[in-house]
Amino acid sequence: MAEFSPGLEGVVAAETAVSEVDGANGRLIYRGGYLIEDIAPVASFEEVAYLLWHGELPNEKELDELHQRMGTARSLNKSAAGALMAMDASIDPMDVLRTVVSAQGATKSLTKPSLEEAIALTTVFPTIVGASYRRRQGKDPVEPRKDLGHAANLLWMMEGKEPDPQKVRWVDAYLVLLADHGLNASTFAARVVASTGSDLTSCVVGAISALKGPAHGGATFAARTMLDKIGSADNAERWLTEAHQRHERFSGFGHRVYRTYDPRAKILREMAKSAAPELHRTGALTEGVALKILHDAHPERPNATNVDFWASVVLTGAGIPKDLFTCLFATSRVAGWTAHVLEALSDLRIIRPASRWTGPEPGRKPLQLAKR
Amino acid sequence: MAEFSPGLEGVVAAETAVSEVDGANGRLIYRGGYLIEDIAPVASFEEVAYLLWHGELPNEKELDELHQRMGTARSLNKSAAGALMAMDASIDPMDVLRTVVSAQGATKSLTKPSLEEAIALTTVFPTIVGASYRRRQGKDPVEPRKDLGHAANLLWMMEGKEPDPQKVRWVDAYLVLLADHGLNASTFAARVVASTGSDLTSCVVGAISALKGPAHGGATFAARTMLDKIGSADNAERWLTEAHQRHERFSGFGHRVYRTYDPRAKILREMAKSAAPELHRTGALTEGVALKILHDAHPERPNATNVDFWASVVLTGAGIPKDLFTCLFATSRVAGWTAHVLEALSDLRIIRPASRWTGPEPGRKPLQLAKR
Repeated sequence: MAEFSPGLEGVVAAETAVSEVDGANGRLIYRGGYLIEDIAPVASFEEVAYLLWHGELPNEKELDELHQRMGTARSLNKSAAGALMAMDASIDPMDVLRTVVSAQGATKSLTKPSLEEAIALTTVFPTIVGASYRRRQGKDPVEPRKDLGHAANLLWMMEGKEPDPQKVRWVDAYLVLLADHGLNASTFAARVVASTGSDLTSCVVGAISALKGPAHGGATFAARTMLDKIGSADNAERWLTEAHQRHERFSGFGHRVYRTYDPRAKILREMAKSAAPELHRTGALTEGVALKILHDAHPERPNATNVDFWASVVLTGAGIPKDLFTCLFATSRVAGWTAHVLEALSDLRIIRPASRWTGPEPGRKPLQLAKR
Repeated sequence: MAEFSPGLEGVVAAETAVSEVDGANGRLIYRGGYLIEDIAPVASFEEVAYLLWHGELPNEKELDELHQRMGTARSLNKSAAGALMAMDASIDPMDVLRTVVSAQGATKSLTKPSLEEAIALTTVFPTIVGASYRRRQGKDPVEPRKDLGHAANLLWMMEGKEPDPQKVRWVDAYLVLLADHGLNASTFAARVVASTGSDLTSCVVGAISALKGPAHGGATFAARTMLDKIGSADNAERWLTEAHQRHERFSGFGHRVYRTYDPRAKILREMAKSAAPELHRTGALTEGVALKILHDAHPERPNATNVDFWASVVLTGAGIPKDLFTCLFATSRVAGWTAHVLEALSDLRIIRPASRWTGPEPGRKPLQLAKR
């Protein structure tokens, strides 16, 4: 029988042209062959989503059309709006997102994943995240706006006031950087769901479910929480040394694939200087000390900073509270999830791995039932 | 780089003692080492769920406790009841199930999967399925009953009248037979979600999402639809011959793992004689002709009947309409999904396979953005 690969490490589970994580060289390549450091400073989230879906960057007309299409598709339908308002306002925003996306994409009968649906689902994420945020604050949701871009509308729906262009830029850059990342766990979950012939909403709901975990999308929250505990730059060394002695893991360091500094973290670290100068200072010192401790303890391991560490600083600077970080991640990654599902459609084969039986052989235990 | 395994065929992705599909010998082994043909005729769904969760069959007291616990946990909470009533009544019952389970299990902050939650989630499936069925019929949902077993309460919630003991027996037997099946796609989806440290509701919602596909849970519906098209026993040969000439796939035949007759199908085929005598006759003739056509076309393939074929006949006899078949499958398999997640907790490692890049190398295409 085949070998057991815990975590499927190194097992090739898909061929894809949506994105490539070249871990050895610290490169993230988006569809079409664009390096993240080339595309991130210049493209908007809408352009990157278009690229992931179509394989080509949009020209002016195509981008206009996408903006218009998204602008008019931001409202929730009746089922989804009802489900949103029925949820207790104190519920974890990721659980609200999982439920309301499920309601929004519900249909009368099975539909095949389509580009139209990919755009529609991607478009409503800020509406749900914004409404969920406001309800937790005891405020009513605000109506989405047609005239704003994706990132600006998200901030509008959270704050209900004209968004600060700087904050829009940071949120947009974050959305661009996180939009796809090879066969990460949530994207893989989406492809497993797709492989049974299920619909696109089910794929996205499965992906949200996987992203929620602290070993995946939840890690940005954990990184920010660690920075909160450290408190200030001059406390970093003491806190990290003690945490290391308690055998705590440092949030925001290490990655399954990257053997080098995460190229997205590099971009976010630079951005953090202007987005959150104070937290950047604490972060930079924390990073230096953490990497030294990790290297001293395990010089053989590539313990580089990952995207979650610096994303948590930039999102803070953009005014996003940490309990929305995983939702922001989902708001970005849904572009990649849907692109992967559309790509997978061309050659659907059910993903059904084998398992190794660790139970007893039949016939060893008597079949003893409770008396009737 | 590693080899590409489409569908992860033969790749061992987990070690498990929950169940084993021994495809070569046509055996399904449930936790503790019980063969499906030994346990199915004597155990109830509650006993099998207990077995999958605990690794042991319950004694009288333990079974009583489980019955009482489930009896008092059948109602939806406010978020879930609200989400249910907000959904358009015409929505696919699987989409209702995905959404309302998501709402029912929503929490204020991340919780670790627990046995309590496994029982609670498993318990509410019939409540949601029954309510969804009644709303599609323009009827109000009925309240669940404490005094009934799991299968009986499901029929009660669908029909709103004292359930026929024969039908209860067939539904219960179906629920026992489908409760777990190795690392099938929906169980694997649940384990992928669990691997990120996400909560149990997210795991179950991911699994429902995967089960919905016609290559997985949706196959029972497809088998019944094929039997509908055939119509009567004397039409089987003509219909199948023509369908084969049109290169249509026969629903209810073939399986990724079994190289022999599915042991569950064998049990259901026998049960179908009394549950749906007329449809059994059509089914038996259809099966004979289909297997002959498939064998003549591909003598090298193990084209045996699978569980979906005879499950569709037995469920019909039990009064379940075919648009609820996938929901019935979910109502059974949730016991296995939750058992797998609880088992996986002991050694969580994120499931993050590799992918093979099929896109261009960076630098080949100019980065041409739309004008600002």
